[in-house]
Amino acid sequence: MTTIRSADELSAGMAFDLGGFVLTREEVLDFARRFDPQPFHLEEEAARDSLFGRLVASGLHTFSAAVGHLIRSGIFAQVNLGAGGAQLAWPAPLDPDTPVTMRVIVEEVRPSRSKPDMAIVKLRYVVARQADDVVVLEVQAPHFMRR
Amino acid sequence: MTTIRSADELSAGMAFDLGGFVLTREEVLDFARRFDPQPFHLEEEAARDSLFGRLVASGLHTFSAAVGHLIRSGIFAQVNLGAGGAQLAWPAPLDPDTPVTMRVIVEEVRPSRSKPDMAIVKLRYVVARQADDVVVLEVQAPHFMRR
Repeated sequence: MTTIRSADELSAGMAFDLGGFVLTREEVLDFARRFDPQPFHLEEEAARDSLFGRLVASGLHTFSAAVGHLIRSGIFAQVNLGAGGAQLAWPAPLDPDTPVTMRVIVEEVRPSRSKPDMAIVKLRYVVARQADDVVVLEVQAPHFMRR
Repeated sequence: MTTIRSADELSAGMAFDLGGFVLTREEVLDFARRFDPQPFHLEEEAARDSLFGRLVASGLHTFSAAVGHLIRSGIFAQVNLGAGGAQLAWPAPLDPDTPVTMRVIVEEVRPSRSKPDMAIVKLRYVVARQADDVVVLEVQAPHFMRR
């Protein structure tokens, strides 16, 4: 895996494939119990009557797992200083035990005006089901990075 | 706590105070280990050299805990069908063991055109430090709700 050493190595349009991950049924239930205890994330039967029609992972969980996957990839470990916000979309729900792949795209690189050793790097993360490429999470987030 | 029985009971400008919560140091470290293993969320010493200057909670954790708090309040338990996305901002970092309060504001209620028994309710959640009202998380999210 690539390791970025300065935001200056990045430019709009660059994309990085980060491999994939799976949220197991046990992880889905455990996360939902802690942070999103709604019937459609917790109980198969109740989920059948929901908008989803089946038990699906919490979108919070998909997002958290994607960030975890990105951090563990190490790609921005030497430059990332934090993110100021994020815009999330969950175009389709994610079922437990369903492999997904993750891609990170650089949308913009802008040197900070006040801090010359920093840049604001707008990233887009796309998480899609491995089997059919259906997108289950899309994130746009401005990251502060070292130059 | 109020329990909403139909999206029709909601209108723009309504606000609900949901009490508060605390992320303990142990919870902050546990969440970061799983989902956001960056030095400024994990190690006091490394965090001192970070943009934050100290160990702070992952913004993902603040967001997840806020959603958990909202769900557990039960206020929308009878009507919430899911959220299609979210816009997040972390105007200030949150320190471990620092009490926060949460407020939910209704920004818009729009009946669904295709599904007359549903409405799209835009909510804003604001999480602020109890001691000085500094906002640590602001979320805007469109929720699908039963009418």
